[in-house]
Amino acid sequence: MEVGMQGGRLVEPDSKIVSPTLSADEVSHLAVDIGGSLIKLVYSSINHNSGIDDKEKKSSKECSVVPNGSSNYPVICGRLHFAKFETSKINDCVEFILSKQLHRGGSWHHETFGNDKKAIKATGGGAYKFADLFKEKLGVSLDKVDEMDCLVAGSNFLLKEVHPEAFTYIDGREEYVQIDINDLYPYLLVNIGSGVSMIKVDGDGKFERVSGTSVGGGTFWGLGKLLTKCKSFDELLELSHKGNNRVIDMLVGDIYGGTDYTKIGLSSTNIASSFGKAISENKELEDYRPEDISRSLLRMISNNIGQISYLNALRFGLKRIFFGGFFIRGHAYTMDTISVAVNFWSKGEAKAMFLRHEGFLGALGAFRSYESHSFDANMTH
Amino acid sequence: MEVGMQGGRLVEPDSKIVSPTLSADEVSHLAVDIGGSLIKLVYSSINHNSGIDDKEKKSSKECSVVPNGSSNYPVICGRLHFAKFETSKINDCVEFILSKQLHRGGSWHHETFGNDKKAIKATGGGAYKFADLFKEKLGVSLDKVDEMDCLVAGSNFLLKEVHPEAFTYIDGREEYVQIDINDLYPYLLVNIGSGVSMIKVDGDGKFERVSGTSVGGGTFWGLGKLLTKCKSFDELLELSHKGNNRVIDMLVGDIYGGTDYTKIGLSSTNIASSFGKAISENKELEDYRPEDISRSLLRMISNNIGQISYLNALRFGLKRIFFGGFFIRGHAYTMDTISVAVNFWSKGEAKAMFLRHEGFLGALGAFRSYESHSFDANMTH
Repeated sequence: MEVGMQGGRLVEPDSKIVSPTLSADEVSHLAVDIGGSLIKLVYSSINHNSGIDDKEKKSSKECSVVPNGSSNYPVICGRLHFAKFETSKINDCVEFILSKQLHRGGSWHHETFGNDKKAIKATGGGAYKFADLFKEKLGVSLDKVDEMDCLVAGSNFLLKEVHPEAFTYIDGREEYVQIDINDLYPYLLVNIGSGVSMIKVDGDGKFERVSGTSVGGGTFWGLGKLLTKCKSFDELLELSHKGNNRVIDMLVGDIYGGTDYTKIGLSSTNIASSFGKAISENKELEDYRPEDISRSLLRMISNNIGQISYLNALRFGLKRIFFGGFFIRGHAYTMDTISVAVNFWSKGEAKAMFLRHEGFLGALGAFRSYESHSFDANMTH
Repeated sequence: MEVGMQGGRLVEPDSKIVSPTLSADEVSHLAVDIGGSLIKLVYSSINHNSGIDDKEKKSSKECSVVPNGSSNYPVICGRLHFAKFETSKINDCVEFILSKQLHRGGSWHHETFGNDKKAIKATGGGAYKFADLFKEKLGVSLDKVDEMDCLVAGSNFLLKEVHPEAFTYIDGREEYVQIDINDLYPYLLVNIGSGVSMIKVDGDGKFERVSGTSVGGGTFWGLGKLLTKCKSFDELLELSHKGNNRVIDMLVGDIYGGTDYTKIGLSSTNIASSFGKAISENKELEDYRPEDISRSLLRMISNNIGQISYLNALRFGLKRIFFGGFFIRGHAYTMDTISVAVNFWSKGEAKAMFLRHEGFLGALGAFRSYESHSFDANMTH
């Protein structure tokens, strides 16, 4: 998590990276979202000591947020902390939770599960896959919350309660979007994790997963790793900065001898075939720069997701598309490609918007589900 | 071209491979479609000597077709021949044309271009890019015909005049589709070449290119070549037969610990993230079997095209989607994946259909444009 908010104001990334050493009673809740590639943690504290622990910074990045309008969300009255780990390094995550005693924060709802059991809210497929591991290593149960429920709850929470949260990215400029709570729905939520989910959101808890695609963050990372030998997603993303996709992509001009194909609205610089140039030359993988490969791959995937998102928004007459998920990582070129794709295919009718806490929608939703329980309980009184 | 028709009857591939040695006056017309990856040739002859020339068989495959209802198409009254070459080996194509004196067949319309000029109908971007090369080596001009016009003309011709041409591919079985000429339009034509064009067809010459994607045949071949060191598209396609995509793709079950995610209709065997498994293991490219890589790649691309096609068909309420282009190559797994994708996303509402002369739509359309001229001329008398 590179950016976050404090008291509703956007603050610079560096000032957000805090690594609080919490005592058990300071942690009120912990929620986890265990996806195919990443584990996302959200936990709250009443007080914290700031300070940067270099060792922990290596394995996770944290930031904190104090949302606006917290009065409606009694649990979220302290400070929220965010952390992420690779799912393949789940033991690091367990160590982190142990070292901070975060799992004690889940006991708030312990009566639901019997007196001798603690449970923490968990979503994502890993809530099923790793339930035994959490039980064994931390002595806690995972109280499973549906993944789509959590994504929507997290997104609605951020859009309604955290300002500024949503922004457009056009011509290299971020522009914050003022969200009118009374005119928020319906919208399309596109969560780009390992795979991609597309959800039509009509209100709190009112939604339908209308589409998705298997070409997502896991594809970028997986194919990118095979093609470039990069060791991490961020390294691969970094590489793409310096790349030139025209070395590998077949452009309209490559086919048309440098001219546009104006009759159907394609300019000579439009990509006709992603990776299409790799077919015709006597070049092997080793002859291409990893930078160029990464750039082509990122553009192919971002453009594809932008296009499928737009087509789904069109089906349901949705003008607003919010993109979340850790694939984006606040990365300028990714956001630019998605924005251009949505603009191109919709002929300017639809707009791509991004969420500042993009990667934590599911974890925030799971965290909020502690709240829903107490909120529902209050409502019934 | 692996299959074709003779007198309206489907005949076996082997019996279709003919390599006629034509004398100039036997060739009535030649049309070329020069794409980013492949050059497609269609030419007609009044008479031909059959016989297989092994040398030529290596560089091109030919077949012949006598369409039904040829009375409406006076030019197409002989035998049609089909051949293809890689665009990067355009000199082989020029040699082929020279050796058979096919370029003399274009002189039919020579008066349009002056007495001392010959011209052949040409479409695809290469009609622009390689115009000088054709002039220099063959002494002919390329009479450029719009690519989309040609695709639509070729498709309409095949669907209306050649039976059986269209078929569905479901559960491993081809089933011919009886086309009712009075109920053909509108339909979506998806031409999968290096890139993909999606065209809403409303009648003869009445169409709109409504969408497309850069993730097409060039992507399969280009990425596949980088990842497997395969030397040809067909070798790569052949490899995919023996592959298992589950080795590399991240399935829903991989994330959910083997269980389905039934609430949103995803089974444990659905692909959550194409190439997603390549991220988490300590494996390099060399540790994966080329067969498995090819299979994952083919499935990713076929599924993606099927999905985007369906979403575009949905926009315009089109129930029939015809797939053409050389990507398909009559390949069972490709057709199966596209069919399943269209069926999955449309919940059984839309149907994928394939065209037997899939790769030659553009070239046939260009060939037909000789006809349109004479037909128009007849009409004006």
